[in-house]
This record gives sequence, C-alpha cells and structure tokens, in this order.
Amino acid sequence: MGNIVKQLAVLGSTGSIGQQTLEVVRALPHRFHIVGLAAGKNLDLLAKQINEFKPRFVYYQDKKAVAHLARTDCELLSLEDMASHPQVDTIVIATSGKSGLSPTLAAVKAGKNVALANKESLVMAGEIITSEAKLHSAQILPVDSEHSAIWQCLRGETQKATQLILTASGGPFHGYSSAQLNEVTVKQALKHPSWQMGRKVTIDSATLMNKGLEVIEAHWLFNIPFDNIKVLIHPQSIVHSMVEFIDGSIKAQLSYPDMRLPIQYALSYPERVHNPKLPRLDWSSINNLTFEQPDLDTFPCLRLAIEAGKKGGTYPAVLCAADEVAVELFLSQHIKFVDIANIVDWALQHHRAIAHPTLEEIMGADAWARQKVIQRITGDNPC
Amino acid sequence: MGNIVKQLAVLGSTGSIGQQTLEVVRALPHRFHIVGLAAGKNLDLLAKQINEFKPRFVYYQDKKAVAHLARTDCELLSLEDMASHPQVDTIVIATSGKSGLSPTLAAVKAGKNVALANKESLVMAGEIITSEAKLHSAQILPVDSEHSAIWQCLRGETQKATQLILTASGGPFHGYSSAQLNEVTVKQALKHPSWQMGRKVTIDSATLMNKGLEVIEAHWLFNIPFDNIKVLIHPQSIVHSMVEFIDGSIKAQLSYPDMRLPIQYALSYPERVHNPKLPRLDWSSINNLTFEQPDLDTFPCLRLAIEAGKKGGTYPAVLCAADEVAVELFLSQHIKFVDIANIVDWALQHHRAIAHPTLEEIMGADAWARQKVIQRITGDNPC
Repeated sequence: MGNIVKQLAVLGSTGSIGQQTLEVVRALPHRFHIVGLAAGKNLDLLAKQINEFKPRFVYYQDKKAVAHLARTDCELLSLEDMASHPQVDTIVIATSGKSGLSPTLAAVKAGKNVALANKESLVMAGEIITSEAKLHSAQILPVDSEHSAIWQCLRGETQKATQLILTASGGPFHGYSSAQLNEVTVKQALKHPSWQMGRKVTIDSATLMNKGLEVIEAHWLFNIPFDNIKVLIHPQSIVHSMVEFIDGSIKAQLSYPDMRLPIQYALSYPERVHNPKLPRLDWSSINNLTFEQPDLDTFPCLRLAIEAGKKGGTYPAVLCAADEVAVELFLSQHIKFVDIANIVDWALQHHRAIAHPTLEEIMGADAWARQKVIQRITGDNPC
Repeated sequence: MGNIVKQLAVLGSTGSIGQQTLEVVRALPHRFHIVGLAAGKNLDLLAKQINEFKPRFVYYQDKKAVAHLARTDCELLSLEDMASHPQVDTIVIATSGKSGLSPTLAAVKAGKNVALANKESLVMAGEIITSEAKLHSAQILPVDSEHSAIWQCLRGETQKATQLILTASGGPFHGYSSAQLNEVTVKQALKHPSWQMGRKVTIDSATLMNKGLEVIEAHWLFNIPFDNIKVLIHPQSIVHSMVEFIDGSIKAQLSYPDMRLPIQYALSYPERVHNPKLPRLDWSSINNLTFEQPDLDTFPCLRLAIEAGKKGGTYPAVLCAADEVAVELFLSQHIKFVDIANIVDWALQHHRAIAHPTLEEIMGADAWARQKVIQRITGDNPC
C-alpha cells in the first residue's frame, strides 16, 4: 500500500463524527486528503473547514448561504453526486438521521468505500444497501466503535461468527429503576459517562435505543441472525464488542473510548497507522472490567429495536422515525424521558408493515411514523 | 480443506497436555488420526492409549517394557524419528522439560507442523529452533493458552504487534506477602485456582516462573522485543492474552479456561471446529474481569526469567535447568517454596554464559546448572 493518499469526502463534516474525522485527517495529512465536505447546519464551522481543507466539492443544505463561501474552484454538488464522484475514493457518511440514506445508496451503487457512521442507513434499508453493495462491489467500512470492534475481530477469520456480543456502556442511567427513570431531566440524559457524541445519539444511548439500532446494523453488516447477537452492559467502555467462533473461542477489541480510532481504522484499512494524537489504554489504571445483562424491562427501547429488526420490512424505518421525533420532543421538553419508549412502541403497534420494501416504501413508512407521532403528541389526531 | 484427516504424533501422550490432546482427537475422529504415541512414563496409561488409538509408531523410555505391549504392526521409533516421519503431518510436543528439545528440532528440520506445548524448547534454544523452522518452512503452532491467544489475535493482521500483553492467573499465592510465601506447603502450591495442569507447570505458575518462560517463548514465537512484552495478573483466567497494534487498538482472546481449546486450535488451524465437549463462556456468570501489575519483588522468578531472556545465550537454559531441579527439590520437600527463586538466581549469577550457543553448548549449560544446584543443596560443593 505504502503512502497512497486516499481522497475523502466527509458528509456531515460539522457533526461530532465529521469533526473527529477531520481531526484524524489533520493528524495524518500524508495519508488522507479531503476532496469533499458536506454539512446540513453550522455554516460558520463549515466555512472554517473549507478554509482549512480547501475541498474540491462542497455541499450545504442552504445553497444560497454557502455560495459566497466556496472558493472559486469549489464545486457545489448534491450529497448523492459527491458520494458517487469519481475523484472520491472513500465517503464518510457521518450525517445523522435518514439524510444519510440516499447518499449511502449512491455511494454503494458507485462501488465506493463507504465509511458508515450513519446508523439509519442500514437500520432503515439494510436489505437494499447490502444487496446493492454486493452487486457493485462496494465496501461498507463500519465506523461505530462496536461494529469496528467486530470487524477487527473477524479480520483474517475464514468462518462466520457464531455469536456477536455488542457491549453497551449502559448510558448515564445504568442501574436506575423505572421510578427513578421517570424523573430524569434532559441535562442528565445528555451527560454520557464515557463517550463524547452528538445529542441524538447521546439520548439514544441513555434509552439503549442506540444499542438496538446497532444490533440491527450488525445483523446487516455481518449477516448474522438476530438470535446470535447479544448485548452486554459494560460501563467502562473499554471492550468495544466481541465475537464468538464455532470452537467457542472469543475475540474482543479494546481501546480507550475515543471515536477517532474506529474512524481512522475505517479510513486506513487494511493498514493500521500510528497516530500520536490517539490516547492508549493504560493498564496501570484499569483494574476492573464489568459485564451485566441489560435490563430490558426498565429500558424497553432495546427490546423494541430488536423486535423491529427481527420483523423487518418497514418496521425498522418506523422505529427510527418515531425515535427521532420522540428524542426531539424530549430534548425540547415536550415529553418525559420514559415517553420515548412509549411513543416508539405505540408507533410500531399501529404500523401496517410492508415486507421487502422499496426505498419509496421505506420513506413512506418514515413519513407516516413522523406524522402519526406528532399528531399524537399535539393531540391533532389521538388515534 | 474439507475433511482431510490430519495424521498426528503425540509426544508426551500420558502427560496432562498429551491426555487432553487425545480427548480432542476422541471428540473429533473425522478430523484427526493418531499415528504415533510417545511417553516417558506411565506405561499402564500408554498401554490403554495404544489399545484405543492403535498407533503405527510407539515410543517408551524403557524399550524393553513397551516391547510386549506394542501390537505386531506397531513400530518402535525414537522420539526424533517419530517427529520427522513422513507419515506424520503434525507433531504435538507435549513432553515436559528439556526432553522436548531434540524432537522439536527434528520436527522443524523435517518441515513439519509442530504443535508446541513444551516450553523448554523455545526457551532454551529459541534462536536455533526458529531459524531452522524458517529454513525448512516448518510451522510452529503454539499450544499454550497465552500464545494461542496472541496467535489468534494476530490472525489476518499484516503489521507486527507493538505490544504483547500476557495474562497470568497469579497462581494460588496471588496477593501473598513474602512472609506468607515463606510458609507455603507443597499441597498448597499444587492447588491452582483456574487451570488443571501437570505438577511442574503448576509450581511454575505459583512462582510466576511459568509466565517468565512464556515471555521468552513469546519473544521467539512472535519476534517481539522483550521490552514490548508485558505481563498482567488476571486471576479469572478468561482473557488468555492480548495484542496491541500500532494504532493503539488491542485485541484479546477469551474463553473458558480449558487447555483443549488451544490444543484443538493448533491442530485444526487454519479451520475452527465445533467440539461439543468444550465448555463455552457463560456471560450471565461473568461479572468481573480484573487486571493488576505483577509483584516482581514477592515473585522474583518472573523478573529472573525476563532478565535471562534478555541476556540470551545460554542463560535461559540455565534458568530452565535450575528451575526444574529446584521445583523437584521443593516437591520432594528438600527446600522451601521461596528457595526456588533463590536457587535460580544463584545459578544465573554463577553462570559463565555463551552467546549464540550451539545445541551442545546449550545442553552443556543445562548439565552444568543441574549439577551445580544439586551440589549446592546436598552440600557437596557449596561454592
């Protein structure tokens, strides 16, 4: 491989994963070159990033606003065009929510390396994306720490895993009773004990919905049945996930909890690269790694997600949409923390699913769920 | 690969590893066939094994005693001839002590797959054995749980490890003070908390000498400098060892502590095979994995071994020989537990080492150390 400079486009460059991706690029300029930057919000930060990385391609949701920022040799592209552009080797899909779906699909159809941090793409349309990736020889490179761990553990193994064990920090409310959970505030929910992440994923971590979405992603990424994917609560966030093989041997991947490592691994793969900015595990300060079964009664989102994943069809799209709206309603203090699970459950109960849906049917289910949840909360149509 | 039946010779078939190797073969008769059995003692058990596995080749230390046991179509071979016989695919070297050295060398010179459980071979003659293995394209397949773990973690990785982390149970005296250690009995020392092993290795585990020998083995097996090999005490014996890579990512191998798994992995490699007899980790009962730095003051054998390994030459041979005699003297209650380290230290201090020794010079150093230690203890020559 040597020192071939990979040409990257970062979709969602102003978000948490996007910014950390640029930190990796900044630390390893001889390895990576930014050819495209795309953001949905935070124009000021995007402007700084454009100034620093001088990308060839730019996208911003508000085209007018970005027009004066882009240098004269910058080309304004749609997310899909950037994701499939011949000058781009690897796309980092770090957008949040369903906005990642369409560019992910464009990238896999163009046979790109897709460093995928956006959960919704695989959760909503795992069947479509993985079959298109296969068809076009695109490689989906997981960026989530859990999936990166599994991917690293599977490296060099020629037989399928018999079990995936996804670890979960348990979030800020690990060990809480239902009664305690009933009283938690937005501020408390946004305080994650071990990871620095965006607001949506931080709340999803607190409800364990995030882990449920990851179970669905793992199912699609590694082609493993849901019954062979387990979740263990591991509050220290040192073991990022594990894989069990047919002989009973288990491999685990460990590191200091820092998203830059799985981002960098996805970008540098198959090479591993020294990055002096990355913290290393210090075994003189690690005495104890603990593991517990998740409490599915107190944290029903994990159960709801796995059930939606097993049922398949448009259920996972409804799960994602209802959760996204519910998390927004919680962050804006319109509903309680525990109502997130109730709303998602209600939406799934009322959904008439379509098996093996098209992309349009998935987007239809998404729209249906958003509308129904908002109607229910605002009381326009209490069903 | 499919179902090619591998032809195995087991050297040391009546010992702990030998017996467990035969258990693996018994569980997977469509995978493995025993063509050779060799033992130094326990003729009754060897007779039973011959009767069950009907090997083509047999070795027993006392040729006369075994002659009437071997069936008419059995051939009596020397260890070296068995280890290098064309009909043998894989040799399991499960003898204890220096008796493994010569057949290991014969096997690597014949370009065999060598499933190596004998520590002394690599500790005493690592330089010779690894260079001969390279020369004759022999593959050394580690059987120790720690080295198997490292080997599994390195699988598929194209870059060298930056650090090996060998775990150690700490043995039955983990946490003991020097004063407490001064009083321990043979019975206590033979009670290992997590592994079922032979007497010599059980005592070596209690002194941590075993871990020191494993550090030297790891150095030779994986070509890693001593300064990049660390030891961590992990009393649960679930994480069998870990590997750190250049990006700071760490992979670990975990399993229920049962030697049959690493034995089977070495035999079935590169395939992994389902064996219903092997216990699996039950995560509902594993709550806590703990890690500590080893106490090199209270358990000096680990430090002595690493120092001998670093110095190289004939020092590791003296380490092994002095330790073997000292452990025997402890088991026969001629010396105290803490005297094992003192004797090894004394022998190393008084040794005039040879750098890059020949096999004869290694055996000479071994003989010198045995004689000196016995002289010192019996008082014939108190130096």
